[in-house]
Amino acid sequence: MVSLSVLLRGGLVLYGRDYKLTRADVLIEGDKIVEVKRNINKPADEVLDVSKSLVIPSFINAHTHSPMVILRGLAEDVPLMEWLQEYIWPVERKLRRKDVYWGSKLALIEMAHSGTSTFVDMYFHMEEIAKATEEVGLRAYLGYGMVDLDDEEKRKIEMRETEKLYEFIKKLDSSKVNFILAPHAPYTCSFDCLRWVSEKSREWNSLVTIHLAETQDEIKIIREKYGKSPVDVLEDVGLLNEKLIAAHGIWLSDEDIRKISSAGATIAHCPASNMKLGSGVFPMKKALENNVNVALGTDGAASNNTLDILREMRLASLLQKVIHRDPSIVKSEDIFRMATLNGAKALGLKAGVIAEGYLADIAVIDLRKAHLLPVNSPLASIIFSARGGDVDTLIVGGEIVMLDSELLTVDEEKVIDKFLEVSVA
Amino acid sequence: MVSLSVLLRGGLVLYGRDYKLTRADVLIEGDKIVEVKRNINKPADEVLDVSKSLVIPSFINAHTHSPMVILRGLAEDVPLMEWLQEYIWPVERKLRRKDVYWGSKLALIEMAHSGTSTFVDMYFHMEEIAKATEEVGLRAYLGYGMVDLDDEEKRKIEMRETEKLYEFIKKLDSSKVNFILAPHAPYTCSFDCLRWVSEKSREWNSLVTIHLAETQDEIKIIREKYGKSPVDVLEDVGLLNEKLIAAHGIWLSDEDIRKISSAGATIAHCPASNMKLGSGVFPMKKALENNVNVALGTDGAASNNTLDILREMRLASLLQKVIHRDPSIVKSEDIFRMATLNGAKALGLKAGVIAEGYLADIAVIDLRKAHLLPVNSPLASIIFSARGGDVDTLIVGGEIVMLDSELLTVDEEKVIDKFLEVSVA
Repeated sequence: MVSLSVLLRGGLVLYGRDYKLTRADVLIEGDKIVEVKRNINKPADEVLDVSKSLVIPSFINAHTHSPMVILRGLAEDVPLMEWLQEYIWPVERKLRRKDVYWGSKLALIEMAHSGTSTFVDMYFHMEEIAKATEEVGLRAYLGYGMVDLDDEEKRKIEMRETEKLYEFIKKLDSSKVNFILAPHAPYTCSFDCLRWVSEKSREWNSLVTIHLAETQDEIKIIREKYGKSPVDVLEDVGLLNEKLIAAHGIWLSDEDIRKISSAGATIAHCPASNMKLGSGVFPMKKALENNVNVALGTDGAASNNTLDILREMRLASLLQKVIHRDPSIVKSEDIFRMATLNGAKALGLKAGVIAEGYLADIAVIDLRKAHLLPVNSPLASIIFSARGGDVDTLIVGGEIVMLDSELLTVDEEKVIDKFLEVSVA
Repeated sequence: MVSLSVLLRGGLVLYGRDYKLTRADVLIEGDKIVEVKRNINKPADEVLDVSKSLVIPSFINAHTHSPMVILRGLAEDVPLMEWLQEYIWPVERKLRRKDVYWGSKLALIEMAHSGTSTFVDMYFHMEEIAKATEEVGLRAYLGYGMVDLDDEEKRKIEMRETEKLYEFIKKLDSSKVNFILAPHAPYTCSFDCLRWVSEKSREWNSLVTIHLAETQDEIKIIREKYGKSPVDVLEDVGLLNEKLIAAHGIWLSDEDIRKISSAGATIAHCPASNMKLGSGVFPMKKALENNVNVALGTDGAASNNTLDILREMRLASLLQKVIHRDPSIVKSEDIFRMATLNGAKALGLKAGVIAEGYLADIAVIDLRKAHLLPVNSPLASIIFSARGGDVDTLIVGGEIVMLDSELLTVDEEKVIDKFLEVSVA
């Protein structure tokens, strides 16, 4: 599994920041890409023939709740509040540590198969997800989802849980598992809670993720409570900066978008979830015009129902085209960046691009499939034709996690069988 | 490939018109399902263990232009008229018979892998598609796309081509290849052309397919020419009846929808294409409220860019949910029917349901994949989690066309290699 050096031989490489399709070898040493050119004549511990494949940067899922795969398909075709109150929350209250462990393990296997190397996760029992992450070999940013609902006792518990997770991950000292602060949302966290998060973000030099402007109700609630927008509230507590990854951002005002842009914060756009829950359409055009850093997320599988960034890219593009009734409204380059480079930028990673000096986070797509051919446009093939499962090899920080569609790190069948049993009994 | 009887042993069967998940065996004799129950104790020529799989009706692609896979990714992010005039038409003018043959063969392989048994195809050189259809073993409705642009000479040519195809398919006498009349659209066909089609439809007892109300421009053009809607024009020529399969139907008025419903005609809804070209949103809610028979189509791969009805179902549902900002606006049962039973109804087939007496058109989905588990709702698993490629076995009219993701009928690799060569040269 761990290799000192890996040589990807003869692939069609989507090279650099302008995604130039280049027939080349890619040499990886340690966790970095060190050379991309034709006929690299150096020894390597592992040599993979990728001559019939596309070699692309792997994906970054900037917003998910991985253990929610357990709830996949549990509540369908129902409105958000009913979805939460009648279905999701009652089950979540009963989830035990081992459920979170197995759920996240299933989720990580799914993410690997769809080419995702890195994900941002907000949930609870995060130590279990850390364990699954180390086992599967992906790169995680794990945050305990804080909800205090203006209750001081609850706030203390949430702060303690957050501190515990911070200490746990610090002590773990893993190259793959990272800490992130994760206040749930401006309407579920008190002002004091958000301010505490802001202080800790500076003290610990930690990233922060939050749900933001997902529903119109949220805007109304915050307006009534604070007399301003949720973005203004984040600004007031000192959270509106380049460390912030805010999920959704559907109901941002023009002024909100300008503020987010100036602050250098990131929006994790989640089109499938926004569509499935009927939440609304992210103002992507305005965000891009204002140079907001837009990344992509799947949200939890309960509102998607997959963790497949390939399908998320397709949706992100198609939705904007039809809403604006203009197919040129968003380019494939922009969409692909959202799934790769922009996520890396949000996380402060030098990743998301196949070029020398970048992290060796790489997905390989075997082109020998009818639905991918012919390749008239590599980006279109990836965004509109490919789907999870087309990625057959995944390299995360130089480690080959999946080869020929088989995970090298964990016993996938054992996990599958476990969930198959409960499904088909 | 051809079996007298096939027994699917122990699968999770999506049974009957109400899709009840039932653990059962399915016995196929000839081209029909003859028995569905636990522990069928009869001999069969082929016995397949499907105990870890979902057994569902295979899909019907009610609108496509299969050879357009050749143009997949050729024109991206550009408006419709530029898309047609600058990219699609110039290439199409150069397509030779053998291009159409190989293109449709690639397309049929893709459709098989995504669980489609039956498709409605409008293009040219249809004899080549007939050949590919017989080889791959799917069920096709092939129509020569007539375009006369009010030119009498051109009309004569189109009529002759149509008659030739009719005679060709009649003579072919294939159980899989069927004829359909295919005037391109009310704005590209003269009134006389449409009237001729209407006469031939009665004379030959033929189905008819056409593009209808795809763009607002079309509505305007027809209004200027005829002073009425495209649906009214079809009514005038006698084409508005249960033999009609009209693709798109985005810009139908309420009155149009009522007329289509009364006539018993079918709309082939193509969400991916409508979104990708920015054409607009099909008024599904009104169509369903008026009991219009709505089927699903992929359109050509140049505006999709796949032929995957699984992904089409997901889009069809997600788009309506977000447009109406109401996740309950359309149920999974409705969406699944569009991809199966409604298509069968349009074609006059007793198919699209797993039950005794129906055509043995069956797709088997292997559930041993992370993104499909757990199965809390079988329909949600199919519509929102599954994707082309998850169907590993396809049975068309009792014949096993694909087994364990491998086509038994054609040398898939030969076709793939042909297109891979032109892609990665």
